[in-house]
Amino acid sequence: MVSKKDIELAVSLADAAREAIRPHFRNLTESERKDDASPVTQADRDAERAMRTLLEQAVPEDGIIGEEFGVTEGSSRRQWVLDPIDGTTAFMAGRPIFGTLIALLVDGFPLLGIIDQPILDERWIGVAGQETTFNGRPATTRACRELSDATLATTGPHYFDEQQGHQFMALAGQTDHKRMVMGGDCYNYAMLASGHIDVICEAGLKLYDFAALVPIVEGAGGVMSDWNGDPLHAGSDGHVLALGDSARMDDVIEALAHSH
Amino acid sequence: MVSKKDIELAVSLADAAREAIRPHFRNLTESERKDDASPVTQADRDAERAMRTLLEQAVPEDGIIGEEFGVTEGSSRRQWVLDPIDGTTAFMAGRPIFGTLIALLVDGFPLLGIIDQPILDERWIGVAGQETTFNGRPATTRACRELSDATLATTGPHYFDEQQGHQFMALAGQTDHKRMVMGGDCYNYAMLASGHIDVICEAGLKLYDFAALVPIVEGAGGVMSDWNGDPLHAGSDGHVLALGDSARMDDVIEALAHSH
Repeated sequence: MVSKKDIELAVSLADAAREAIRPHFRNLTESERKDDASPVTQADRDAERAMRTLLEQAVPEDGIIGEEFGVTEGSSRRQWVLDPIDGTTAFMAGRPIFGTLIALLVDGFPLLGIIDQPILDERWIGVAGQETTFNGRPATTRACRELSDATLATTGPHYFDEQQGHQFMALAGQTDHKRMVMGGDCYNYAMLASGHIDVICEAGLKLYDFAALVPIVEGAGGVMSDWNGDPLHAGSDGHVLALGDSARMDDVIEALAHSH
Repeated sequence: MVSKKDIELAVSLADAAREAIRPHFRNLTESERKDDASPVTQADRDAERAMRTLLEQAVPEDGIIGEEFGVTEGSSRRQWVLDPIDGTTAFMAGRPIFGTLIALLVDGFPLLGIIDQPILDERWIGVAGQETTFNGRPATTRACRELSDATLATTGPHYFDEQQGHQFMALAGQTDHKRMVMGGDCYNYAMLASGHIDVICEAGLKLYDFAALVPIVEGAGGVMSDWNGDPLHAGSDGHVLALGDSARMDDVIEALAHSH
């Protein structure tokens, strides 16, 4: 379903986003810092515009769903899902752990994903049925024999509502909470794919936040799902789990259920 | 009080720590990952040992306070304070936003500080009465005209007790909470010194967590204090504030007090 040409196109999008984002890192304008709306920067807009231009030239029949400029309907079964800067607050705070997310959905399921870190020149590429790569070399999740050994990550407790917060804390209490990490956005999933984090639990994610992550995590040997263990797709509700070792999935779902 | 030779010595410590830490990044052993005690890695121990060796050769009369190997009493009024890896959980999770912290205290007050990021080759140097540098160029905090414009950072809510958590949330509610960042450890203070973050509020910090930060933040035009606005020193209780714009200090202290 995903051709070599699709992968090359996705890589060219990531290259274009890098070029658009780099000049803005640690170089925000006063107006970007004080915008009353949700944090969106010139870099977000420039990068998405560059990617859309390439897509409209190469695959005008495919749809596009972008964080900044919304939905462009296509005539094929395929949609490109773009988040030019996932982790905008990290980007704005000068942390080089945000990422550009690019996904290709076929019939609503993500079959190709890229996480690109433009400042550190780090790129993870995942394709359904293939081995995930990090800068061209295989990326592999690590084994996790007990949930109590697991390093857990989440972007921030302020993304959970009260019930979700209780469920997350129930899970956190069963992991190795001394090694829990906050913040991180898509970079957590990249680190999970590379074997440095075991479990990620988030809620309230949009399609453009999670679509690219699925082929990357699964091609590295891990698994992603919603909080019920069901596969993620275009209609998922934004409750997202990622595990480096799928053998811990039952433990994680049970821990989340225990707070009820 | 701080000589050119002291600065050169501190730089040689940071160089030695870099060399000790780099081979271990994203390359932990199974036993490091599962240690039941607080996360401490081989990189922590190797880096502190390398720095202590240099200090014992160069300034045997000075005291040493290190996170891993404790206190070595000296005969001078000076103490070197070492945290080989501040942000061990970030280090272990593969995030290159931890740092090596090196401080020189004279009569208990920090007059020289280094934050070094060994993977990104980033180094901030602060000396009392001098302009802070980032990789050799001046680093400057940014102005913050209203607390409601401020980007707030803290390493994690799990470091606060319940009362401290209420106080922090009262402060967070008056800042630009859409841009608040979690995680980060010493890297937040480096970003504040370079003008990308406005306010940092933490509790429970040890001397080795905050000593190096004070000359860096203040030499960049900011201010550090405890939660009462008093200067930080060897006897401080670990409640730490950092502001890029000292004109907002009264607002921050008032916000923290409001939760009482």
